[in-house]
Amino acid sequence: MVIHYFCRMIDVVVIGFGNVGFHLCKGLIATESVNLTQIFSRNSGNSAFGDISIIKNLNDLAEADLYIIAVTDGNIKEVAEKLPFNNRLVVHASGSTCLEILPKKNRKGVFYPLQTFSRKRNVDWRGVPICVEAQNEDDLRLLENLVKALSGNCYTIDSQQRKILHLAAVFCSNFVNHLYTIGSEICVANDMPFDILKPLIHETANKIIDLSPIEAQTGPAKRFDQKTIDEQLKSIENSSQKLIYELLTKSIQGHEKKL
Amino acid sequence: MVIHYFCRMIDVVVIGFGNVGFHLCKGLIATESVNLTQIFSRNSGNSAFGDISIIKNLNDLAEADLYIIAVTDGNIKEVAEKLPFNNRLVVHASGSTCLEILPKKNRKGVFYPLQTFSRKRNVDWRGVPICVEAQNEDDLRLLENLVKALSGNCYTIDSQQRKILHLAAVFCSNFVNHLYTIGSEICVANDMPFDILKPLIHETANKIIDLSPIEAQTGPAKRFDQKTIDEQLKSIENSSQKLIYELLTKSIQGHEKKL
Repeated sequence: MVIHYFCRMIDVVVIGFGNVGFHLCKGLIATESVNLTQIFSRNSGNSAFGDISIIKNLNDLAEADLYIIAVTDGNIKEVAEKLPFNNRLVVHASGSTCLEILPKKNRKGVFYPLQTFSRKRNVDWRGVPICVEAQNEDDLRLLENLVKALSGNCYTIDSQQRKILHLAAVFCSNFVNHLYTIGSEICVANDMPFDILKPLIHETANKIIDLSPIEAQTGPAKRFDQKTIDEQLKSIENSSQKLIYELLTKSIQGHEKKL
Repeated sequence: MVIHYFCRMIDVVVIGFGNVGFHLCKGLIATESVNLTQIFSRNSGNSAFGDISIIKNLNDLAEADLYIIAVTDGNIKEVAEKLPFNNRLVVHASGSTCLEILPKKNRKGVFYPLQTFSRKRNVDWRGVPICVEAQNEDDLRLLENLVKALSGNCYTIDSQQRKILHLAAVFCSNFVNHLYTIGSEICVANDMPFDILKPLIHETANKIIDLSPIEAQTGPAKRFDQKTIDEQLKSIENSSQKLIYELLTKSIQGHEKKL
């Protein structure tokens, strides 16, 4: 049986209403080819999306083409096992969780948006890479069509590649943001506004449109400017910041020596 | 004597033609109120800017309102001492170098653009914070007017604050870019294109327009998701990457515990 999902709306239920679930619902509602039929949320009684039904009991789940589990990684398995139906398409939205964690009673898949989500910040879904995985062609096609509707940027990769990608994302996003935190603390501790660093932060991110990160590298570590490095280390009072400075300087210099 | 710099062109000479000098020249040429009269470059015989005179001998320096020394930090003092004139305004463009390094024979100042410069990447000067310092009001006014013409984003700060700012910039730009390098290496080693991470990298930088970096933090470290952290650590083969992962995870968690 070939199902032409493109010809009709895709009925989707989102299970979980944390940062990812919330923004996923918001994004799906805005698409023309998706019908978000229900949201499952343990805590919230209010969907914040007008007439979309929000449920607190998994037994109240309606029939749909796709169920997206967007709960914390540690709870995916338990939630999937409690689903009161069989042979429907059930996917999770986690980077580091393999497909196999989902129980066999339903058709399995993954729908992992490679983006950082915070409740208070609007997400522009256009262009967001979404990594999909499924066990058969029809299910894969449905997921690809959903990505087409939501962001237009689909990657079909397996669980192992997705885990590696999530690791790279931790370096490029979570750890990067933490360096912003340190920069902000240094500014505030010295009566300077963090705002002064923002044009630099944006240009640092924008540079890699044109250049590889190795080409884009600048600074005292790259220049082996030991005088500046020593002075900067001396001026850091926080021992954790000092360790991070030393380690990243050493790592940059290790790369430069290889070039 | 009050000099109304606004009423006439500011004659500027740029000494040094590395990444900063090159982009500074390019930016100054594009402004309407600045006349870039000469460029001093030890190496290049070609200014790449049409009719701007390029000189190789400091004795050939013409008279100007301002001389900007944009050479590597370690050479600023020597170049400034060799200048064949007195009592003119001479500034350097370095973050980590104090005003006092310049010799007394000329009027001293600093003109430090807080940005990352690579030869191959065009710089949009609009909005780039430029930190200025001078020893008298007239010189400070001239530098402020130059910033107004070039980027419109002027900060008058002293040498101590500028050093601290440069340290914060190393964390938010040089170290951040190195994390991009690591992310790129992880992708490439596993046959995935680095491009897949770019929307995430841009959103991570854009999030801090709306949110403080502490509010913007996401990821396994913030969630104390030890299972994912352990799995990711296990999957990292490079020992330096492993140390960076451990240290930054610990630092993020130290911050979360304080919240």
